[in-house]
Amino acid sequence: MGVKVGIIMGSQSDWPTMKEAALLLDELGVRYETRIVSAHRTPDRLWSYGKTAVERGLQVIIAGAGGAAHLPGMMASKTRVPVVGVPIQTRALSGVDSLYSIVQMPKGYPVATMAIGAAGAANAGLMAAGILAINDPELAARLDAWREALSASIPEEPKDD
Amino acid sequence: MGVKVGIIMGSQSDWPTMKEAALLLDELGVRYETRIVSAHRTPDRLWSYGKTAVERGLQVIIAGAGGAAHLPGMMASKTRVPVVGVPIQTRALSGVDSLYSIVQMPKGYPVATMAIGAAGAANAGLMAAGILAINDPELAARLDAWREALSASIPEEPKDD
Amino acid sequence: MGVKVGIIMGSQSDWPTMKEAALLLDELGVRYETRIVSAHRTPDRLWSYGKTAVERGLQVIIAGAGGAAHLPGMMASKTRVPVVGVPIQTRALSGVDSLYSIVQMPKGYPVATMAIGAAGAANAGLMAAGILAINDPELAARLDAWREALSASIPEEPKDD
Amino acid sequence: MGVKVGIIMGSQSDWPTMKEAALLLDELGVRYETRIVSAHRTPDRLWSYGKTAVERGLQVIIAGAGGAAHLPGMMASKTRVPVVGVPIQTRALSGVDSLYSIVQMPKGYPVATMAIGAAGAANAGLMAAGILAINDPELAARLDAWREALSASIPEEPKDD
Amino acid sequence: MGVKVGIIMGSQSDWPTMKEAALLLDELGVRYETRIVSAHRTPDRLWSYGKTAVERGLQVIIAGAGGAAHLPGMMASKTRVPVVGVPIQTRALSGVDSLYSIVQMPKGYPVATMAIGAAGAANAGLMAAGILAINDPELAARLDAWREALSASIPEEPKDD
Amino acid sequence: MGVKVGIIMGSQSDWPTMKEAALLLDELGVRYETRIVSAHRTPDRLWSYGKTAVERGLQVIIAGAGGAAHLPGMMASKTRVPVVGVPIQTRALSGVDSLYSIVQMPKGYPVATMAIGAAGAANAGLMAAGILAINDPELAARLDAWREALSASIPEEPKDD
Amino acid sequence: MGVKVGIIMGSQSDWPTMKEAALLLDELGVRYETRIVSAHRTPDRLWSYGKTAVERGLQVIIAGAGGAAHLPGMMASKTRVPVVGVPIQTRALSGVDSLYSIVQMPKGYPVATMAIGAAGAANAGLMAAGILAINDPELAARLDAWREALSASIPEEPKDD
Amino acid sequence: MGVKVGIIMGSQSDWPTMKEAALLLDELGVRYETRIVSAHRTPDRLWSYGKTAVERGLQVIIAGAGGAAHLPGMMASKTRVPVVGVPIQTRALSGVDSLYSIVQMPKGYPVATMAIGAAGAANAGLMAAGILAINDPELAARLDAWREALSASIPEEPKDD
Repeated sequence: MGVKVGIIMGSQSDWPTMKEAALLLDELGVRYETRIVSAHRTPDRLWSYGKTAVERGLQVIIAGAGGAAHLPGMMASKTRVPVVGVPIQTRALSGVDSLYSIVQMPKGYPVATMAIGAAGAANAGLMAAGILAINDPELAARLDAWREALSASIPEEPKDD
Repeated sequence: MGVKVGIIMGSQSDWPTMKEAALLLDELGVRYETRIVSAHRTPDRLWSYGKTAVERGLQVIIAGAGGAAHLPGMMASKTRVPVVGVPIQTRALSGVDSLYSIVQMPKGYPVATMAIGAAGAANAGLMAAGILAINDPELAARLDAWREALSASIPEEPKDD
Repeated sequence: MGVKVGIIMGSQSDWPTMKEAALLLDELGVRYETRIVSAHRTPDRLWSYGKTAVERGLQVIIAGAGGAAHLPGMMASKTRVPVVGVPIQTRALSGVDSLYSIVQMPKGYPVATMAIGAAGAANAGLMAAGILAINDPELAARLDAWREALSASIPEEPKDD
Repeated sequence: MGVKVGIIMGSQSDWPTMKEAALLLDELGVRYETRIVSAHRTPDRLWSYGKTAVERGLQVIIAGAGGAAHLPGMMASKTRVPVVGVPIQTRALSGVDSLYSIVQMPKGYPVATMAIGAAGAANAGLMAAGILAINDPELAARLDAWREALSASIPEEPKDD
Repeated sequence: MGVKVGIIMGSQSDWPTMKEAALLLDELGVRYETRIVSAHRTPDRLWSYGKTAVERGLQVIIAGAGGAAHLPGMMASKTRVPVVGVPIQTRALSGVDSLYSIVQMPKGYPVATMAIGAAGAANAGLMAAGILAINDPELAARLDAWREALSASIPEEPKDD
Repeated sequence: MGVKVGIIMGSQSDWPTMKEAALLLDELGVRYETRIVSAHRTPDRLWSYGKTAVERGLQVIIAGAGGAAHLPGMMASKTRVPVVGVPIQTRALSGVDSLYSIVQMPKGYPVATMAIGAAGAANAGLMAAGILAINDPELAARLDAWREALSASIPEEPKDD
Repeated sequence: MGVKVGIIMGSQSDWPTMKEAALLLDELGVRYETRIVSAHRTPDRLWSYGKTAVERGLQVIIAGAGGAAHLPGMMASKTRVPVVGVPIQTRALSGVDSLYSIVQMPKGYPVATMAIGAAGAANAGLMAAGILAINDPELAARLDAWREALSASIPEEPKDD
Repeated sequence: MGVKVGIIMGSQSDWPTMKEAALLLDELGVRYETRIVSAHRTPDRLWSYGKTAVERGLQVIIAGAGGAAHLPGMMASKTRVPVVGVPIQTRALSGVDSLYSIVQMPKGYPVATMAIGAAGAANAGLMAAGILAINDPELAARLDAWREALSASIPEEPKDD
């Protein structure tokens, strides 16, 4: 069966952040592809990625971008496949620019926006898994187990290093 | 077949905003339920809503909240059902407080955050529909039609009133 | 001779702001066209507008948008014609979202960003005229006169109504 | 006599900040317990901590959290014991997210919010001591002495290192 | 028995907000006094209010202020009685100025900061009651009842007006 | 033929950022001059630079400044030559002060504002080239090639270091 | 004896705010002049106002401006006469733009910045009076009396309307 | 003749910033005193410093503070001697908290606010000198010379290191 999750990002420099999404999907046994798709530098790649997403069987697209961060929103314009957006932390504005550019979409084109940076990327993986789990009981079980393990990992008391 | 989308909100005063999500789901022929679930005032209601979400067949939960806005994140803690969060616009901080409280979730508990206010609520409905459409070809077709109609409604030129 | 300035905007609701650009160009005797081009709702229109801008003889494109405000940046991705961006004031975030989404463009795709709202739209008209005036001495003279008239209009002292 | 102050935090990584509260209580001779209670990862632990707080004799709960920072507010929902909240400094948003999520509580569930970071944690210890001192004259005397010593420690003039 | 709660504010214009604290204390049967104490205009009044707070039997001081908002912090400097601070909403900066000036206190002088505006003032009343309830079982019972009534007042579903 | 682009900045410390504009113009074969022109320290230099810009043949002025950042706007007041503004990143406010001071110009005096920092400076070079390319087919061709090369440089997939 | 205080502002629309400075000086018996001096529209007027300030006997200049707000800082560049700056409240950014543009001056050119809006304008009048009072015992006495009257005007308790 | 300028600050940790004010006054030959005066830790020292300022011959008070930063405003409440405020840069909020707490003073008590950090401290020295220069022709001449030297120090062109 084909890949159901696409992880895309605006540039190679976003990969250290977006890798967290990939790692999470690895942990949960979800197959994915990774692509660099720049809204501004490769708009035609964006176009064709979006236009073929449904027929290629993609069910969730995770898109990370920083600054003006048009990638997630433009992808949401080109396909009805749910888009999960990850605001990359930026130098001057710390990712507030990325966050506003991704989350403040107009009516018609939602982007499921996550937290700024690495935690947001990991959560994008979890959100994708949660969406796929709706119709995949085995993945649902693995996700439940992952969540239980996270809860179980919390110690009772803080301790000094 | 049962209701697959739950629209919950922290208080009655959120309804004028959250109604936009309901209207969108009406347009797309998606059944839903609406509930007031306050993270602070009715935490036990939140608990049981979250704990029973899977068994009740909910597939997406749309949660709107303002200010400290703990509802979406706490719901994401209680169930693996994807949670779509809508930051309600607030008086002093215009919803920036709601946005930060909803979107800045720690690793493990994603909330699919939408834009502040009514556009965000409408988009929450579209995001829910997009998720359900993955396994519902008829809904997918209606969603595609909705999107095409939106595009077709845009005139070529602006005009004075 | 053809139209050299295109004024585009994301929706009809941007027109009351963007009209200020048109009025300024009227005052300066610069011909222009006005179009609604939505980055999300009519991406193909955006594509073809950008792709044909050079051959159609456009020399400056003024683009207004609010919220996630992808229009100016996406247009800058599709054409080398200089793009002047106008951040529309928004309800929750007062146009800070529009401003960040327009101004924080990555290397390669500049958008000449103006102030938020009506003053920014008027200035977009002046910026377009200033660019065209480089090779149009008559327009340069009219622009100089406009500027001198503005300076001359300032009274010496404030007065009560 | 039992412990009257509980210091709780969302994760081990909050301890270097929250330790300042513990150190302050040590200085003032106030006994306390420390617990990791995550609103999202261990919601049931939060529930039971809150539900048993009164009967266990807790008189003040100090809660530190970062980002979406739901812990202090959710604890305030579960018990009438006064909750003192400490916004942990965060990477992208410097703790403004933590601050807004903690302080902007709706009517009914106050959280006594302190400054962002280590100074806020130390002050949480002082606030707890100040509350307990209302009915503990010996603690009141120690707190008065602590305050006088702080005032007395300030030199008259600044000096170079 | 004497009054245990002082509600103070920087000016008459803060009263419409601060009245919410008074109303809450009325509901809970807690006696209080109200005073205008301006940090800048009546610093000596602030001094003597702070200096005599303990001997007059005050157990909590609720202080509201807007803008530079020095009142709560200066009061915390003059007495060990716990100070609860309410940031008044302001015209230009919406109370963010008030919030920062109240919450960002240095180590040594905590102010228990509430939300901006009326909800914060009401919560200041609740926080005061929660502190007094530690040693007043009857007030504790009334506070529990108030909280239960609030929870019970939440309807199951939102409804149109 | 004379120099058509002036790159000016408020101080030597802005040069590491503004050099990016120079490098871009070098790549595109556009001649330029570089000057330190401080709005506050050398206002007369600013005056004469602006007053002689047209007669000296300048067609675009790139102006970088930080903090109060008056240089771009004051230059726009002194000449109709298009001014492209670059907000320099600052220590305390990260360049938000520079951005607001440059972009929020009143009607009459547009500044084509770029992103904060180095990306903005590079884009200022591109914007200048784009303006000159309107009447310089060879430069237009070089700019097109530069843009195509940028697009072509983007790999298909991200890779680990 | 001549006028010692100049009140200048960027446009007629600033007068309703800046009038507060004039009213304060009237109350204190300080003579002043009022002028519209726009940094961008009438830079030469700014130049000559600054250049002649000392010889004309001005001892304090109060300058109000909004948005990019270059007037106070440019005036400080042209004269050593102390400049008091008043940030005018703006539509989109509420005067935060004005504040940052006025206060964030580089080393060499201080502007004595006041609060945003009408309170800041009134305080500019008081600051001017305070400066003049250093060498004017009669004005010092009037200023002391004004301050005492302000303190005396504060009632003991708030009251309902 | 006595000292005319007092440089005060909230704590020893402010000295590396405030030393810039002292250095500037040294350069201009203005005598000053330096004191640590904490609004919260030594309020009585603040009181007596303010109350005796006029009789001791102080003509300008420079006050630096960070965070809640009450020192400048409280000093302005206690004396009519002009107070120049310097917002110290802070860890979490970068000095925006200090800036708002210092600049947003209510009508009646102006603080001449400078830029955040070291540049602001240096400018506080210059502002003090500018105020004293009104009645001190020799200082005025030295200040003019300092300003001319600053202008003369600016090179024509930037250069690589």
